[in-house]
Amino acid sequence: MGEFELIERVFAPLSCSDTGTGLVLGVGDDCALQAIPPGHWLAFSVDTLVEGVHFPTGYAPEQLGWRALAVAASDLAAMGASPVCFTLALTVPEASVDWFEALARGMQHAATSFGMRLAGGDTTRGPLALSVQVHGLVPVGQGLRRSGARPGDLICVSGPLGNAAAALHWLSTPAPDARAEQLLASYHHPVPRLALGQWLQGRATAAIDISDGLLADLAHICRASGVGASIDSATIPLTPALRASVGDEALTLALYGGDDYELCFTLPPGLQEALAREAPQVCTVIGKVSSGADILLDGQPVMPHGYDHFGAQS
Amino acid sequence: MGEFELIERVFAPLSCSDTGTGLVLGVGDDCALQAIPPGHWLAFSVDTLVEGVHFPTGYAPEQLGWRALAVAASDLAAMGASPVCFTLALTVPEASVDWFEALARGMQHAATSFGMRLAGGDTTRGPLALSVQVHGLVPVGQGLRRSGARPGDLICVSGPLGNAAAALHWLSTPAPDARAEQLLASYHHPVPRLALGQWLQGRATAAIDISDGLLADLAHICRASGVGASIDSATIPLTPALRASVGDEALTLALYGGDDYELCFTLPPGLQEALAREAPQVCTVIGKVSSGADILLDGQPVMPHGYDHFGAQS
Repeated sequence: MGEFELIERVFAPLSCSDTGTGLVLGVGDDCALQAIPPGHWLAFSVDTLVEGVHFPTGYAPEQLGWRALAVAASDLAAMGASPVCFTLALTVPEASVDWFEALARGMQHAATSFGMRLAGGDTTRGPLALSVQVHGLVPVGQGLRRSGARPGDLICVSGPLGNAAAALHWLSTPAPDARAEQLLASYHHPVPRLALGQWLQGRATAAIDISDGLLADLAHICRASGVGASIDSATIPLTPALRASVGDEALTLALYGGDDYELCFTLPPGLQEALAREAPQVCTVIGKVSSGADILLDGQPVMPHGYDHFGAQS
Repeated sequence: MGEFELIERVFAPLSCSDTGTGLVLGVGDDCALQAIPPGHWLAFSVDTLVEGVHFPTGYAPEQLGWRALAVAASDLAAMGASPVCFTLALTVPEASVDWFEALARGMQHAATSFGMRLAGGDTTRGPLALSVQVHGLVPVGQGLRRSGARPGDLICVSGPLGNAAAALHWLSTPAPDARAEQLLASYHHPVPRLALGQWLQGRATAAIDISDGLLADLAHICRASGVGASIDSATIPLTPALRASVGDEALTLALYGGDDYELCFTLPPGLQEALAREAPQVCTVIGKVSSGADILLDGQPVMPHGYDHFGAQS
């Protein structure tokens, strides 16, 4: 079976075009075609996962399929976009049908959960890597950017942090304990905060998804907005499983560890009650935007270095 | 210098947002934002180039930059789309600023030639590979598909074939001769037939770009359209440099060799004169669409096997 046949057969269930979502033409031609409804902009983002860098060698293909789409869709959440479709650029060392089918299953599970269709792709031979580009919609003139945070805004996160970073220690353990299971789930099965992102549209002043670490990603907001931040470490949400598993390291992992894919956003203080009452997700206020340029943790300046793919301190 | 700073600095010249083209928000946020003008659909396609598979190890980064964008934009040409912007998912083993700058230079050269902007991307550490996703526009209801070829249509190609395949022999030679130079230019500097593709919009019944080889790509049109084809080998355009360089192998390379990125399209016979008189590119009629399922070369059935990334015969 050649490349084209393999792709068509295995990925066919994901790729049905659907005029309801605007995907006029999906997989199988030189380009896909997407209709953008009046009053909307296209929002798009691409994320690459490389074996041995972003996931361990020999990682289960079904988990990889979920993870690759979830990580990419998290950028739509951070922009407040409603998801539509995605492309998959897949590089694999060899073409095992079983492996492809498991990957497609995991990806289809994610695609169904997020309401997305496979629109196109490219499959090539080479070291294992996936680049997923996601397409979503935002109302014209909107889109949650990183640049709108203002002094006095509340800094919020959409869920507990540090679990995925702690899970890295467990990835190669064949039979982890119950605590490890919960941490591993955060790594294997990140959930993009799509509903929350859309709710934040027109409410939050800035947003980002936490892929590189809370402080590193908050630093992106601060730099883009020309502001500083003050964080209260006691308010950062940590799971009991994380505390039990790593003890005093929990806060460090929550501050610097990546791969959580929760949202970090800034909100005018007047909307705190609405956030608690109406938002589709329990969020936590962890600090406040300041007029300086520093990020203060419990009053002390901190360096926002998190996970950097080139290993440098930013 | 960290990943983010490096990308921002080196790729900044390519990434200016430009409301004239609809790119509302470019590199630097969670998503890019694109406005689609009324009456248009978004056309998009992704292509991956892997070191050692699609280009030789140690390939010059400036040539790689041109090639990566040209190859991807060729799919816009095959759809008759007008180009707008692109994303770059770049995986590199190490971050040399010189290498990045040369890559960006080659890519900017291509982007300027094609009228495209860098809209976003992702840079990661790993084995060298580039996935480029291109965005273009087609009028609503249009788009050159593979599926519209009808018996009696003329089969045309937009330029000489086989040069890029012949160049593969020369890629590792330090000082090739003058003939080789011309063949190498076809490989290093493919030119997507964007103006021709747009001219063919509403005229051609089917189109594809020749990336896998003339017969392999024509077979995609035939399969999608439910037709056969009859090709006259004597009409296939070959350059004198190719004939001089490989002698009797020239036709084989033109039929089966990939990487030419000329368009292959089918045209109602009544438009042959308009093609010769008005098209922005000299095209050649090489055969005719038939009602069968076979591809005949000088009356004999041929297998359309070309370059397949999984090495199988399709």
